Amino acid sequence: MNTSSALFGDFYALTMAQGYWKNNMNRQAVFEMFFRRQPFGSGFSIFAGLGTLMKQIQRFSFSSEDLAYLQSLGIFEEPFLKYLQDFRFTGSVWAMDEGTVIFPQETLVRIRGGLIECQIIEGMLLNIINFQSLIATKTARTVLASGNGAIMEFGLRRAQGFNGAMSASRAAFIGGAVGTSNVLAGKEFGIPVMGTMAHSWVMAYASEEAAFQAYADLYPEHPVFLIDTYDTLKSGVPNAIKVGKRLAAEGKNFGVRLDSGDIHYLSVEARKLFDAAGLTKATIAVSNDLDETIIQALTDQGAPINSWGVGTQMVTGGVEAAFTGVYKLTAREDGQGQFLPVMKFSDNPDKTTNPAVKQVWRIQDPQGMAVADVLSVDDPVNPDILEKGGHYVFWHTSGDYRHFSHTLEGTAEPLLKLRMEQGRPLAPSPSLEEIRSLVRSGLASFDASYKRLLNPHIYKISITERLRGLKRELIKAYLGAL
Amino acid sequence: MNTSSALFGDFYALTMAQGYWKNNMNRQAVFEMFFRRQPFGSGFSIFAGLGTLMKQIQRFSFSSEDLAYLQSLGIFEEPFLKYLQDFRFTGSVWAMDEGTVIFPQETLVRIRGGLIECQIIEGMLLNIINFQSLIATKTARTVLASGNGAIMEFGLRRAQGFNGAMSASRAAFIGGAVGTSNVLAGKEFGIPVMGTMAHSWVMAYASEEAAFQAYADLYPEHPVFLIDTYDTLKSGVPNAIKVGKRLAAEGKNFGVRLDSGDIHYLSVEARKLFDAAGLTKATIAVSNDLDETIIQALTDQGAPINSWGVGTQMVTGGVEAAFTGVYKLTAREDGQGQFLPVMKFSDNPDKTTNPAVKQVWRIQDPQGMAVADVLSVDDPVNPDILEKGGHYVFWHTSGDYRHFSHTLEGTAEPLLKLRMEQGRPLAPSPSLEEIRSLVRSGLASFDASYKRLLNPHIYKISITERLRGLKRELIKAYLGAL
Repeated sequence: MNTSSALFGDFYALTMAQGYWKNNMNRQAVFEMFFRRQPFGSGFSIFAGLGTLMKQIQRFSFSSEDLAYLQSLGIFEEPFLKYLQDFRFTGSVWAMDEGTVIFPQETLVRIRGGLIECQIIEGMLLNIINFQSLIATKTARTVLASGNGAIMEFGLRRAQGFNGAMSASRAAFIGGAVGTSNVLAGKEFGIPVMGTMAHSWVMAYASEEAAFQAYADLYPEHPVFLIDTYDTLKSGVPNAIKVGKRLAAEGKNFGVRLDSGDIHYLSVEARKLFDAAGLTKATIAVSNDLDETIIQALTDQGAPINSWGVGTQMVTGGVEAAFTGVYKLTAREDGQGQFLPVMKFSDNPDKTTNPAVKQVWRIQDPQGMAVADVLSVDDPVNPDILEKGGHYVFWHTSGDYRHFSHTLEGTAEPLLKLRMEQGRPLAPSPSLEEIRSLVRSGLASFDASYKRLLNPHIYKISITERLRGLKRELIKAYLGAL
Repeated sequence: MNTSSALFGDFYALTMAQGYWKNNMNRQAVFEMFFRRQPFGSGFSIFAGLGTLMKQIQRFSFSSEDLAYLQSLGIFEEPFLKYLQDFRFTGSVWAMDEGTVIFPQETLVRIRGGLIECQIIEGMLLNIINFQSLIATKTARTVLASGNGAIMEFGLRRAQGFNGAMSASRAAFIGGAVGTSNVLAGKEFGIPVMGTMAHSWVMAYASEEAAFQAYADLYPEHPVFLIDTYDTLKSGVPNAIKVGKRLAAEGKNFGVRLDSGDIHYLSVEARKLFDAAGLTKATIAVSNDLDETIIQALTDQGAPINSWGVGTQMVTGGVEAAFTGVYKLTAREDGQGQFLPVMKFSDNPDKTTNPAVKQVWRIQDPQGMAVADVLSVDDPVNPDILEKGGHYVFWHTSGDYRHFSHTLEGTAEPLLKLRMEQGRPLAPSPSLEEIRSLVRSGLASFDASYKRLLNPHIYKISITERLRGLKRELIKAYLGAL
């Protein structure tokens, strides 16, 4: 399947594109991607997928097969198909750094280009950023729950398709996982690959001890034995001890993996048995439908667990399987070179958008701790700048009466940066390791109360006085009243 | 990315494979895939992904790049890597028909081959079948909830990556969706593509009416107007009526899409306004985070809705994002040509497996309605056959005392069929349309009580007397007691 096909998008993008093309409406426009709601009841999310998006935008095109298919639908005219033949994205991309800690309503990606190109990349852009952000967020929460323990991503078999697995491995590593079981992700992304053994290995041998011994003979550097095929405490642990003692005699260590039963009880009992046998360095890994809630409970209870194999819940999001990112038109050129801010109202107030081309500022106190994020109008002629010592009033994103005053004593950093101009990236994408450390340092700049798994403190996202004014003006103009 | 790379799997498959290879243990083995629990509290699931799996098994191989990567890990020996160079799956595949209505514990796919090849395809096999079965099941439930209404799959932007979207489109069509918004899925799988317009279309014009009119001019065959950009009832519906009347004058029809607000209220009000304007044929489509529960409630309340655009919840599974399929060794050749049944015990009784090479029988009454499914030993020498008029005792899959007696008055159909021998398919895969009608006819053979969305009747899955005997023998042999 051709993953660079610009057919990977919603049908309406193409029917609208033909309309813009026929009606000479392919004017410059600005679309912004933001999300509406934190997943998992989380206090934060992690922005991920930008590196993938930058690559994909450049490859996006229609092959002659793609065009033949479109023609077969009987709805697209020849000249428009001819136009699509040369389609390439030639616009600009602003975006936050991949790995940034993010919040609802904030512009994460800003696209400027012709209406057609902006519309054609919509589905692909949302598909990539939504999914990778979901998984990076879930993983960051999982890592926090384990007290920054070793989280191994073992999700391939339950992931949502080929790319569901590949993208999840990438995003989980960004979010803080130490490695993956997915060998192809290891190769493609340079992520450390890891794994233990399957029940089938144990069952393929005449006895559990023989299976462990055979594995230890092959991989004497810290082999990890799966100990629940027959009976964890009565069979698995004793057999692991037998083989482990032989390894210890050669100065080598080993580990076990628990994959069923009560993990707290079994890890405590296994630890006791290993310690009693003098195998105090033997490590305990656990798996079995883990998520951040279970991991936090085990960590809080002091279960003697050295590493965590996390699959299904982490690579799919589990109870919440989608990130709520959307992509909305926020300004359009009026045909006379002027950019008009636009907004969508909707019958759900929470689906009402923030108009205008925007910048997002992260305000930090003098100690470098995050205080609030602020959306401003990004006007190149008369820019909103948040300066040290300045005194500001920031408003609730709804535009209503809620506000707070702030004297800027620390810093205000603009989070959106120009990444691509005329369809060409301005710099190579950072490595996954760099993105991963940005997640770590970014999270460190937020108070622990925002990172609580359950009922976190809600971080302030506001709009400037000017953006609020503009929003209220548009509401008045369209709806006749506020 | 190379989607045919045999690196797409778990690391442990390769470390174990090297072990089997070095220890001359690459004997014939049988692995079976089954699932443990119905997703969504459903009374049934739909088996999907087989067509994809059959293609993928044949393509699965290690490129020289793949081997170079494995070598770089420093854990695989040259002769083993040389062995992998020529790796192709050369075993046999039995499977149910794609589109079969399925239940926990049943063998869905049975693989016979060398231990190594069986192990290497594990991750890929589970990844494909788990995800597509999840989505086909979710969609079948959604279609039932709508009273077999028109469910359009609109999930690309929230799907889990590229393949999450592509596979979901395929599986949703199998499950009964009438089409997809994903154009590439339309091209690849021949699924009808459909869509309406985005808010950006409406915002790109000076007025909502102008936007609708422009769209109607371009696509006069039943254009569908998105009516919630400004105000659904005060602006969207009146503008749709203005343009709709002009279309009606030309003998053409139109529709609208509701995407926010209270869908029941708005659909009823919009219907009234259209009818009052004489536009009784105008259709109403709805979207906005729908799932089978919401759709059933709207259908039960008689909301005047003609079609449903379903995205996020249907293409990710929503609250349940993974199918619980697993792949377990059930028999292995002992080195003397004998196949030994094996089983895994585990500390969770529900993770204990059913041993032996198995067949699955669907028992139907003389009216063709499903009565129960039965797992038997599939012994070519001395086969278990369920014959008309025969009197049988069937046992609970746990092997405990629970059982029922049945005189076979209808039919007993073996569900597992041989699909591939020596790595080659015996027949081409059926078309998606064929698979889709198998889902429909399959579901029709189950009583409505099994298809209830909430608290469905639990369909009986049993094992034969012989399989129960074997299971109890193995439990005795391994654990010393029952």
